Amino acid sequence: MTAMLHIREYQASDWKAILPMLQATFLAGDTYTFSPKSTENEIHRVWVEVPARTFVACDTAGQILGTYFIKPNQPGLGAHVCNCGYVVPPQAQGRGIASLMCEHSQVEAVAMGFRAMQFNFVVSSNIRAIRLWEKLGFSVVGRLPKAFHHQQLGYIDALVMFKELTP
Amino acid sequence: MTAMLHIREYQASDWKAILPMLQATFLAGDTYTFSPKSTENEIHRVWVEVPARTFVACDTAGQILGTYFIKPNQPGLGAHVCNCGYVVPPQAQGRGIASLMCEHSQVEAVAMGFRAMQFNFVVSSNIRAIRLWEKLGFSVVGRLPKAFHHQQLGYIDALVMFKELTP
Repeated sequence: MTAMLHIREYQASDWKAILPMLQATFLAGDTYTFSPKSTENEIHRVWVEVPARTFVACDTAGQILGTYFIKPNQPGLGAHVCNCGYVVPPQAQGRGIASLMCEHSQVEAVAMGFRAMQFNFVVSSNIRAIRLWEKLGFSVVGRLPKAFHHQQLGYIDALVMFKELTP
Repeated sequence: MTAMLHIREYQASDWKAILPMLQATFLAGDTYTFSPKSTENEIHRVWVEVPARTFVACDTAGQILGTYFIKPNQPGLGAHVCNCGYVVPPQAQGRGIASLMCEHSQVEAVAMGFRAMQFNFVVSSNIRAIRLWEKLGFSVVGRLPKAFHHQQLGYIDALVMFKELTP
């Protein structure tokens, strides 16, 4: 299925398509720290305004099936390491879209001059994501005890995952 | 010496005293990721505006010998873990000021409802800080390969350190 996907830069007219995906993801409260009660303005800020760039994954009909952002993970002397966030709505999962977006983001990251990519907060119960990031070359480099307040499971660990992108 | 120290909430009139400490610390480029070229406005934002609270440590004459901030380390579902940053100028180091501020911050953190404290980015060459945080109950829970661009040593590792504050 992924061969039919096209990833392009986000544009303002995509907002109405990606907002419901982001709202549903944050509302579920099982993968991102963003509050389930985040307002549209807050979501726009974290997904579009704060990041350096935002992308969308589309099918051949132009329908958006996923989105991701890329930004420096730290200012100044840590700004050579980037951070990304990916969202695929439930109805589009299982088609390799997250995998494709992550590979795309690594290429973009190198082109933007980043030397590594860090995920600060992979929820330990999100086994599918952990396996996918490991398959794509990321390693677990840290474990944060009870750092995530899962809406069903309570306080559970979060993982720090990391991949060097340059030799 | 620490018995003579008093820690109180930051007030706007403290800015002229703490700005040079923060500028010198960031300029050295060996402990914080903030750019050595940070402007006064940028420094004010990260040390005073973004944090939930900022404190200063004073001697009996009222002279400021250190400062720290406290803030949630993540939004929403990670907001029960706080993050702090501490700065003591070179001429005041070795007097236990960082230790006292860290202990003070843990008490404040619990009073503010935080359950744990996380340092995201302890530079691996900053042995004195690592030893101090370990002495104060923090553990190294992660290692970020070459994530810090040290101004003398080049790309070196940064550590993630963590302490649970509630049983």
